[in-house]
Amino acid sequence: MSRAPFEYRTVDMTDEEFADEQAVYGGLTQALRRLGEASLRTTVDAETVRLVTAQVEEMAEKLETAMIPGNFGVVVTTSGHVRGYGNAVVGLRNPVAPPLRIVQDRDEGSASSAFVLSPLYEGPPGKVHGGVAALVLDQVFGEAAAAGGSPGMTGTLTLRYRKPTALGHCSAKAWVDRRDGIKTVVKGWLKDAEGEVTVEAEGLFILPRWAREQLAESGEAPPQYE
Amino acid sequence: MSRAPFEYRTVDMTDEEFADEQAVYGGLTQALRRLGEASLRTTVDAETVRLVTAQVEEMAEKLETAMIPGNFGVVVTTSGHVRGYGNAVVGLRNPVAPPLRIVQDRDEGSASSAFVLSPLYEGPPGKVHGGVAALVLDQVFGEAAAAGGSPGMTGTLTLRYRKPTALGHCSAKAWVDRRDGIKTVVKGWLKDAEGEVTVEAEGLFILPRWAREQLAESGEAPPQYE
Repeated sequence: MSRAPFEYRTVDMTDEEFADEQAVYGGLTQALRRLGEASLRTTVDAETVRLVTAQVEEMAEKLETAMIPGNFGVVVTTSGHVRGYGNAVVGLRNPVAPPLRIVQDRDEGSASSAFVLSPLYEGPPGKVHGGVAALVLDQVFGEAAAAGGSPGMTGTLTLRYRKPTALGHCSAKAWVDRRDGIKTVVKGWLKDAEGEVTVEAEGLFILPRWAREQLAESGEAPPQYE
Repeated sequence: MSRAPFEYRTVDMTDEEFADEQAVYGGLTQALRRLGEASLRTTVDAETVRLVTAQVEEMAEKLETAMIPGNFGVVVTTSGHVRGYGNAVVGLRNPVAPPLRIVQDRDEGSASSAFVLSPLYEGPPGKVHGGVAALVLDQVFGEAAAAGGSPGMTGTLTLRYRKPTALGHCSAKAWVDRRDGIKTVVKGWLKDAEGEVTVEAEGLFILPRWAREQLAESGEAPPQYE
């Protein structure tokens, strides 16, 4: 078997430990998102900004006293939870992630999410960055392919920008449109707070050979984020 | 004239004040990026995480005592600098932005950038999130269109994922391939640290009617980020 380019680590962790971890780290990351937005919008004097900067550096030093060596990766607990905490869209421990909570519907072969994009996701004034629309749709599309029983890697993604998306409440949905062997076509949209479609997209997902071999060997589906 | 959906505010600011502001806020945002990565990778005990969380909330309160009402927007100084500080890809005051420094070549009609994607931009384990590749390319593509004298809004963007992109050093380039009236076709790529193309993309940029009218009225090009 060819070596898989990705590996999912496994850790021994009870459901209770998992819930505790979610509360503790989820709290820190949520606080960091708030601080990030405050740092963008604040108009306090330079002296206060310098003071806060020094405190932020101190806190970073504190957390850096013990760290995993590189990226977080995707870690599966022995009780079956998937910790994709570093994921740039859904990561519980990633202040860059909005984050999205994505609901997969396995009967329908779809995935959807309602979320808020703060001023940290701005492109044109007051509008969602076109690339942020692509970022969230890529994740929702990948989860739709997985929900439809055809997990895979993004092969191509085409985005049609119908109109600018206002910052704030948004929603996204994607579904498996059709399958052709190892290829799965997913379609979907991004809507603004008014419920108007602002971006339409189509994606082609391909299950790479190493993953097909891995699945055949283990008889299992690849892990899903939560 | 139809009302433009976006507005660029102007502030009275000297070059020196602008440089000071960049140093002060650039420093805070850089510290926040460091803290964000530490929060993802740390293995310190839960008590320390709770302590840091409380300190982060305190600092957010301090910065929130005086804030602009909503999003940052794009602000042009009287000395001609463009402050797109909230931009999700290049924003100086946005901890979500990696950030990219994009160099525009007006002779060639291109834009390029060399940058680092930290573990905060992860998708598959150890790899850049496919949506993050789209996020950075969308910005580089928009700037290439502008550098080529055809600023516009993203109409469509098609991404072809050739292979996974390792986290770390990356580069991106985009150039105007051809023009057809108000439409501009931009092509480009994302490369990994080895210099291999991992994502190819093509974008169609359209100058909307309100912008054409605004340009005709002012005789000026729209502002470019710095």
